[in-house]
Amino acid sequence: MSDLVWQHMNLCPGGDPGTVISDAALAVRDGRIMWLGAASDLPREFAAWPREDLGGAWVTPSLVDCHTHLVFGGHRADEFALRLAGASYEEIARRGGGIVSTVKATRAADENALFEAAAARLEPLLTEGVGAIEIKSGYGLELATERKMLRVARALGRRYPVSVYTTFLGAHALPPEYAGRADAYIDEVCNRMLPALADEGLVDAVDVFCERIGFTLAQSERVFEAAARHGLSVKMHAEQLSLSGGAALSARYRALSADHLEFLDEAGVQAMKEAGTVAVLLPGAYYFIRETQLPPIELLRRYEVPIALATDCNPGTSPAVSLLAMLNLGCTLFRLTVPEVLQGVTRHAARALGRSEHHGELAPGRQADFVAWSVTTLAELAYWIGRPLAARVVRAGATVYRAGERQWTGHAGGQPTSFEGA
Amino acid sequence: MSDLVWQHMNLCPGGDPGTVISDAALAVRDGRIMWLGAASDLPREFAAWPREDLGGAWVTPSLVDCHTHLVFGGHRADEFALRLAGASYEEIARRGGGIVSTVKATRAADENALFEAAAARLEPLLTEGVGAIEIKSGYGLELATERKMLRVARALGRRYPVSVYTTFLGAHALPPEYAGRADAYIDEVCNRMLPALADEGLVDAVDVFCERIGFTLAQSERVFEAAARHGLSVKMHAEQLSLSGGAALSARYRALSADHLEFLDEAGVQAMKEAGTVAVLLPGAYYFIRETQLPPIELLRRYEVPIALATDCNPGTSPAVSLLAMLNLGCTLFRLTVPEVLQGVTRHAARALGRSEHHGELAPGRQADFVAWSVTTLAELAYWIGRPLAARVVRAGATVYRAGERQWTGHAGGQPTSFEGA
Ligand SMILES: [Zn+2]
Ligand SMILES: [Zn+2]
Repeated sequence: MSDLVWQHMNLCPGGDPGTVISDAALAVRDGRIMWLGAASDLPREFAAWPREDLGGAWVTPSLVDCHTHLVFGGHRADEFALRLAGASYEEIARRGGGIVSTVKATRAADENALFEAAAARLEPLLTEGVGAIEIKSGYGLELATERKMLRVARALGRRYPVSVYTTFLGAHALPPEYAGRADAYIDEVCNRMLPALADEGLVDAVDVFCERIGFTLAQSERVFEAAARHGLSVKMHAEQLSLSGGAALSARYRALSADHLEFLDEAGVQAMKEAGTVAVLLPGAYYFIRETQLPPIELLRRYEVPIALATDCNPGTSPAVSLLAMLNLGCTLFRLTVPEVLQGVTRHAARALGRSEHHGELAPGRQADFVAWSVTTLAELAYWIGRPLAARVVRAGATVYRAGERQWTGHAGGQPTSFEGA
Repeated sequence: MSDLVWQHMNLCPGGDPGTVISDAALAVRDGRIMWLGAASDLPREFAAWPREDLGGAWVTPSLVDCHTHLVFGGHRADEFALRLAGASYEEIARRGGGIVSTVKATRAADENALFEAAAARLEPLLTEGVGAIEIKSGYGLELATERKMLRVARALGRRYPVSVYTTFLGAHALPPEYAGRADAYIDEVCNRMLPALADEGLVDAVDVFCERIGFTLAQSERVFEAAARHGLSVKMHAEQLSLSGGAALSARYRALSADHLEFLDEAGVQAMKEAGTVAVLLPGAYYFIRETQLPPIELLRRYEVPIALATDCNPGTSPAVSLLAMLNLGCTLFRLTVPEVLQGVTRHAARALGRSEHHGELAPGRQADFVAWSVTTLAELAYWIGRPLAARVVRAGATVYRAGERQWTGHAGGQPTSFEGA
């Protein structure tokens, strides 16, 4: 890779639209940022480098999707249709629906099939400028399938221009084999699954679903302790459907993030603030399951807890493969501001992964991972619904995606003949 | 164009997922459907035709977006951001926001600029398989700009493989020049603008925004009468923010559709049923302005009023360029069923345009406008959030869009060096 100066852009290095360098330049050598600033200040040493013109685009760091369950078998579209048609939860369960159906499909799929299915969900995210993504296990609920999921996640990171961070979520749900024996399953998670997967280098962090319908505080704590024994960071699905104290527990374990948080209380917010735990909000799930309890945005603001947003891509409660859609949902439903949602998918999302030094900001010395957007103001990223906006996605200085300049074929068949306008 | 048999598909000719022909074939000559049915029943006369394999895709008629304001100048993303930051409506008005800002920007834009801006919004819809779209005027509120908008709409239909149906919406809002003189503006709409534009062949139908903040019932009726004098069909923005009786008035004028309808009452539903007026629901606007009054879905079902869905693409209340997003919103927020939303963007949407004979169904004699979807069940069209699903869009027998088989470049820069998984 050679030297290059990117020029003619409005550069937002930190993801905060309040801090933009207009007519900026960005000097990149071997995929790393050497310098950035106003083009008029470009140091003489870069003046002779070749140039690449971004045509006045707005540039942000690549986006970070810090909470996904991207790898899974099957989907639950038919269950979605059934529920809309009036089927009860019991009926759906009887027909094999719910998370159990995803566990079954994920266990049954081979690694290639899982890879292809996940890749098809990853690609739309990449065309939106996602440069780093977290992928959880949690639909295996047994060692072999959890391993398979994490291996697929790693393989996605090798195949695609994106940094993949894996999270072991063995404690996602109680597998049917352990019905009535949750503590025994937690033993299996802590004493067998996690040690094996961590040894294989498949685990970057450990997550647990702490909820009435998930695991108790005490069980969650055992998972956190096991993670600590392996030197792994933790995070938690917390306070989504009820207040269980999971966020406060997470803070005690210096969790990277506590996620969902609709029912979080002030004590939990305060604990998160003190621990530096990021609040990951998941407006896709809030929307899709028609939650009505809003996360305590004002408290998070008052205590200055960093807020991140993510797709929570999963087949049951957030079949979402657009991070920009989460910006719109976050603004519309949670009344987050545009600077909040933009930092929520850059700086703060990187922090939620414990990777602030690698993602979410542009600065000298960092890898040149950025997105050039076809917009006239960054607010457009949160405003449009379903509009592709990335003109270019750059990874380590190389363009990995360019918006299709599609050649629409002329409409040979034309208007129906009974209709011809002026 | 030559003869072709499309094969290896699950064919849903009427947009109703309840009626699917598995392993279907579709014989097309010169862009028209000659025959469709189970492949095993293919008549001998087509047996020797060349074949095109759809690889087991699900096929529906091309989609119809029957209510849009696609052509406008500027956007209102900054206004969106300001409002989230706490600015009052007054403050935004003082800064030149609201519909007036769109009117100003649309008046100021030349035809080329308007075309380019609208084309950029049209393209994502086309990649989703939209084959027919309604485009309204209504940001000119004066003859020259209304003409410009409608000319741009027509030009889009010539440039892109999509049927464009134009609607004159001069009675969208009161232009600032007519403040306090709404009746005089309606004179202008009825006696000058509509006659001129209709004479120029720019108008397929006439719409009016009947609402406390729009025009009265009496004013709306005058617009309908003017339309009748020109032999044009009518439709109405009705009962969105309050019950004004607009839907019932529309029915009296045999309107093609009444649109929005959150506050519609049983008498209005009944009138619509009797008149054959389609109920066009706009879940994007409902969502974006955080409406809480749901349209009377149960009443519409009980009276069997056909329900259509549309993007309502517009800069103020529905900056949406995805019709599939409307399926998801319609199911999630309105609890419409999957068959309802699918017919809402095919059969019923075509009927809302008065073009049932041209769009929304596949049958012998019709133009071969269809979409091949990369799904395993049609429910996926409503289930995913932000997922491109069209594998191919076919217009008059010719493939006009094919999902990108993008060559992702390897991640030259790779994972940040401090992180390498197994
Ligand atoms: Zn989750
Ligand atoms: Zn409208």
